[in-house]
Amino acid sequence: MNPLKWLSDEYFDLNGLYVDVLEEPPTALEFSRLAHISRPVLIKGFEIPANSKLWTDEYLIQRMGSRSVSVAVTPNGRADAIIAGPDNKFYFTEPCVEEMTMANLFANLSEDDRSQGSETYYLQSQNGNLYSSQFFEGREAPSEFESLRGDVPSEISWCSQALDRTPDAVNIWIGDGNSVSSIHSDPYENIYTVVRGEKLFTLLPPTEGWCLNERVYPHASYVRDPDSSQLRLQPSAEAPRVRWSSITDPNLPGALCDSAHPIHVVVKSGETLYLPAGWWHHVRQSGITIALNWWYDIEMRGPSWVLLEFLRNIKDVPDGNEKTKHNEEETAQ
Amino acid sequence: MNPLKWLSDEYFDLNGLYVDVLEEPPTALEFSRLAHISRPVLIKGFEIPANSKLWTDEYLIQRMGSRSVSVAVTPNGRADAIIAGPDNKFYFTEPCVEEMTMANLFANLSEDDRSQGSETYYLQSQNGNLYSSQFFEGREAPSEFESLRGDVPSEISWCSQALDRTPDAVNIWIGDGNSVSSIHSDPYENIYTVVRGEKLFTLLPPTEGWCLNERVYPHASYVRDPDSSQLRLQPSAEAPRVRWSSITDPNLPGALCDSAHPIHVVVKSGETLYLPAGWWHHVRQSGITIALNWWYDIEMRGPSWVLLEFLRNIKDVPDGNEKTKHNEEETAQ
Repeated sequence: MNPLKWLSDEYFDLNGLYVDVLEEPPTALEFSRLAHISRPVLIKGFEIPANSKLWTDEYLIQRMGSRSVSVAVTPNGRADAIIAGPDNKFYFTEPCVEEMTMANLFANLSEDDRSQGSETYYLQSQNGNLYSSQFFEGREAPSEFESLRGDVPSEISWCSQALDRTPDAVNIWIGDGNSVSSIHSDPYENIYTVVRGEKLFTLLPPTEGWCLNERVYPHASYVRDPDSSQLRLQPSAEAPRVRWSSITDPNLPGALCDSAHPIHVVVKSGETLYLPAGWWHHVRQSGITIALNWWYDIEMRGPSWVLLEFLRNIKDVPDGNEKTKHNEEETAQ
Repeated sequence: MNPLKWLSDEYFDLNGLYVDVLEEPPTALEFSRLAHISRPVLIKGFEIPANSKLWTDEYLIQRMGSRSVSVAVTPNGRADAIIAGPDNKFYFTEPCVEEMTMANLFANLSEDDRSQGSETYYLQSQNGNLYSSQFFEGREAPSEFESLRGDVPSEISWCSQALDRTPDAVNIWIGDGNSVSSIHSDPYENIYTVVRGEKLFTLLPPTEGWCLNERVYPHASYVRDPDSSQLRLQPSAEAPRVRWSSITDPNLPGALCDSAHPIHVVVKSGETLYLPAGWWHHVRQSGITIALNWWYDIEMRGPSWVLLEFLRNIKDVPDGNEKTKHNEEETAQ
């Protein structure tokens, strides 16, 4: 018996593809129960000052003025993804981060698909760009988005009360349909609100992570060549290797083995997704999309953490650039 | 790497032997968080009409009158335990169940250790003897202890609200220091209140279950021989084999491997233990001890259940009566 296959089948048999939909935000007690169940929930009616009517391009550009923000730039819309380098080896590749004004960012986003070849811009700094853990510790915590803080509560009362903690990071995300987030999981409870546009999540439970064929890859970054002004992939000299799924797009036919049961959730403007810690997610977006997320540390004392650790460590992770017996077996499955 | 040893060490490193002590019962929200953490909690100040001053022998005998109750009788105080049979094979052995009045039960219990050779009586029918699942489903649910129901609430508001369900069973337990419950785990959230006497729990987290060397055993029961009136162990003709720990007393020196970190909790009169689903427990008592417990079904949609299922099924369980290579290896650990 493959214990990982057995477990994922068992979990699927019990829970299927069910995603709860709430017509209004939960109470703290209700959300505590949902966090214990640890399945995705689509929440409607969670209202914050930042909403699609207020957060027009013009409003954001005006509020941010000449302040610069850190934007991820890639030649292909794939930041933090496995990309073949000039030596044909695969690298976990971080984006080129460039500073620009909000006006400049919006000038580079599109509601439509663009012609190939142009660069893709995605504000995805995800370092607590609105509120960081320092902020919650009461320390000095400057933010690139200081002037938008009035529109975004630093914490969500029903979530903070349920989890008995403040967030670890609150982020703003601004991008368009050219950006895709490769499938990965985070050790955080995630409350994800879409302000404008829509996000298309492909989700897998932690138990199906073994279907994603994780590998370890050398690290690289996109850098802008000073001569050509073009982006090129540059392997990192010293960065540690990165563990990442070798599956580029879980939505392609045959990409996943039979034991994987992806769940598709569209989160529209004004809607909020509870994405439980450890759930795998691949994210696309439709048109110019603005989102906010609150990351809360997972409860490390309980079975959720134990299970995630077990699933993460029960198997060795092969090298992504070596054709090993292990890799061949997985491909043959 | 032995993944089970790795996981139990990891869990112990994170949590140690910590048992939370609450000076008063939690709110529903607080208990929901505790159930998510899934560690034992000693709760003081949970008051119910049944208390040590009210529930004297005389009161219970008077209230129950001539009604008969089902009592487990064994020659050794070990009901539901692994016992060597007349053929020297080991059996999972259930007690002889005899009907008697409350007066008769108390006449057979002792505040002190008794002389060896006499029988041990323990009211431990644990079938929802106060309130069963039928009761909560609104069906006819007669109880041997109908006349005590007024002293025992059918459910605990903070627990029912937190877990969003009614109990599956509510039980009364009456015994003395001669009875011991062998180490086992239940797939239930358990709220355990001591009314009189005290209970001595030896607890192990689910992650250390592999240290208990589970085996499968044939089933037997104690029966009373009509000629000699003595109890004797009688192997069952048709009952399925039972999976049980092969460790008779986890408190004996050397009984457990180094990765096991037993937690000792004494629950005194008026105190309540939250014993999370899947935690292993060996239970002794001191003097005449009366307890009540509320079993609630575990949340089967979440990581707790997934983890327990994984831990239960990741290893094959050897035969308890065969000297196998596996058994020898474990003994040598």
